[in-house]
Amino acid sequence: MSIAVVTGNPKPGSRTLAAATLVAEKIAGGPPDVVVDIVELGAGLLGWGDPAVNAAIESVQKCDVVVVASPTFKSTFTGLLKLFLDQVPTDGLAGVVAVPLMLGAGPGHALAPELFLKPVLVEAGATCPTKALFVLDTTYDDPTAYEPWLTTALPQIQAAVGTPAA
Amino acid sequence: MSIAVVTGNPKPGSRTLAAATLVAEKIAGGPPDVVVDIVELGAGLLGWGDPAVNAAIESVQKCDVVVVASPTFKSTFTGLLKLFLDQVPTDGLAGVVAVPLMLGAGPGHALAPELFLKPVLVEAGATCPTKALFVLDTTYDDPTAYEPWLTTALPQIQAAVGTPAA
Amino acid sequence: MSIAVVTGNPKPGSRTLAAATLVAEKIAGGPPDVVVDIVELGAGLLGWGDPAVNAAIESVQKCDVVVVASPTFKSTFTGLLKLFLDQVPTDGLAGVVAVPLMLGAGPGHALAPELFLKPVLVEAGATCPTKALFVLDTTYDDPTAYEPWLTTALPQIQAAVGTPAA
Amino acid sequence: MSIAVVTGNPKPGSRTLAAATLVAEKIAGGPPDVVVDIVELGAGLLGWGDPAVNAAIESVQKCDVVVVASPTFKSTFTGLLKLFLDQVPTDGLAGVVAVPLMLGAGPGHALAPELFLKPVLVEAGATCPTKALFVLDTTYDDPTAYEPWLTTALPQIQAAVGTPAA
Repeated sequence: MSIAVVTGNPKPGSRTLAAATLVAEKIAGGPPDVVVDIVELGAGLLGWGDPAVNAAIESVQKCDVVVVASPTFKSTFTGLLKLFLDQVPTDGLAGVVAVPLMLGAGPGHALAPELFLKPVLVEAGATCPTKALFVLDTTYDDPTAYEPWLTTALPQIQAAVGTPAA
Repeated sequence: MSIAVVTGNPKPGSRTLAAATLVAEKIAGGPPDVVVDIVELGAGLLGWGDPAVNAAIESVQKCDVVVVASPTFKSTFTGLLKLFLDQVPTDGLAGVVAVPLMLGAGPGHALAPELFLKPVLVEAGATCPTKALFVLDTTYDDPTAYEPWLTTALPQIQAAVGTPAA
Repeated sequence: MSIAVVTGNPKPGSRTLAAATLVAEKIAGGPPDVVVDIVELGAGLLGWGDPAVNAAIESVQKCDVVVVASPTFKSTFTGLLKLFLDQVPTDGLAGVVAVPLMLGAGPGHALAPELFLKPVLVEAGATCPTKALFVLDTTYDDPTAYEPWLTTALPQIQAAVGTPAA
Repeated sequence: MSIAVVTGNPKPGSRTLAAATLVAEKIAGGPPDVVVDIVELGAGLLGWGDPAVNAAIESVQKCDVVVVASPTFKSTFTGLLKLFLDQVPTDGLAGVVAVPLMLGAGPGHALAPELFLKPVLVEAGATCPTKALFVLDTTYDDPTAYEPWLTTALPQIQAAVGTPAA
């Protein structure tokens, strides 16, 4: 199973990236094959056809699974993440299993990944078989914070990519 | 593959029921194993512990797949459907693949099944691997209205129930 | 200013009703003019044209403001509340200022009144000038739990009903 | 009444801008006092503290009303618009009446401004008393496309800014 991580935190090397990488490792049993820390793509995100942006999108499209992650800004995912998703072609994530992940400072925005981020990934053609995942900033590096979700989500992801559950 | 249909139209034998049955037949290759036309459960829906309501819920829980369908009232699914879903136990749809389906008089509410109905089914523990389906009232009995959705959704559903795609 | 309270808790005389009444008193400076504890309308809610249901709707339509309240079931408002709202005529809340209020056991569903309940009230024609209000079950009778919301919401409501702010 | 227009279309001088300007003129009875065509702010949007971005935000905050407009990308507003909104301080739109406006190629995304854009503006502290507005690309310059919405929305906006309705 090949897996990508896409993170839309304006700060490079963020806790968002760490959390998404942790989730990807739990899913795939090893480090992600592709990591797109969107902020590193820079001003090319503001136009169309930037080669680095296109290459990043294509590398994600080739993976079986992508973890798409963002901090919570103004109750939803960041503009930075959406800038990247806006450049994905119509149905560009068809055949890819996507996992929506958001980090937040408090539990009050826990519905945001399910209600805001998942619909965008579905619109882009992705298969989203799991409940969206919301994690508190303060527990982003605590593997137990992910356990209940993983118990349910791992078999859903494995079925969706055609891999028999362990 | 066993499949159920649950419909929340206040009119028995509605177009909503016909549409959900059509979708179920396309998914399972035959008539649904379980049909719950919620309105027929009557006033037992307003309390807790009604035997007929409980039996209906249990019959759905035993199926691999359920098509959950509603007309669009006030931009979202009906109170009648939600009355039934409110009685499903916590995580009561775990292990069931659910397909959200809404019918509407016009295309303006096409996002409603994705944004309103799917999150409730996910909260009830169901696996929802497909895009939610919105169908116009006027084309509810036209199989071609379902084709584009079915092309993408059938393999997603088959993978989620562990059945190899045809 | 005339004010109504509409609550969709399956238990009569619930904390939901108490919370909605408290909010109404803070808004209007006295007890609500109209109280609709929907569960008391009984099986008439399942059909169309029930005289008691119609009278309840008309009494709400005559008020300047209505607080519409529900507990959180399966991440959104109850089927009981929606049964009642489904019977409101098209644009039936035009000219009424509506305040969406939901109670929940934990903060994880705090976005539900804004994302699920407010859009239904807007679709019914109501003016919803405030942020939707989410209150924890455990603090439903603690006036301080409502203070931050009230500070912002009261002038918004007063402006919307054409009453000069105090 | 002072009014601002903020548009998040990656193409400068877009139909989105024209539509938002038309709405602003209908609301205020004259041209907008402030126009922020976000794409013109350029790469400063990708960091924090850019003087031109800050000046744009402050100019909006000083207005009574702001029309916030976007085309529909991947079923919701653009990353470009969200980049700008992400830079608005906490409660930075308190005291400002905001009108969410989205343009789309077809009616299927008509719920997007109500369900995706309005909640972000509310989270930023704005007062959003009207139904969100969705307009088809093809009718963006046809004043009759705005009439039904304006009939209801104008008095709601005027009340919210403390101006007596005409």
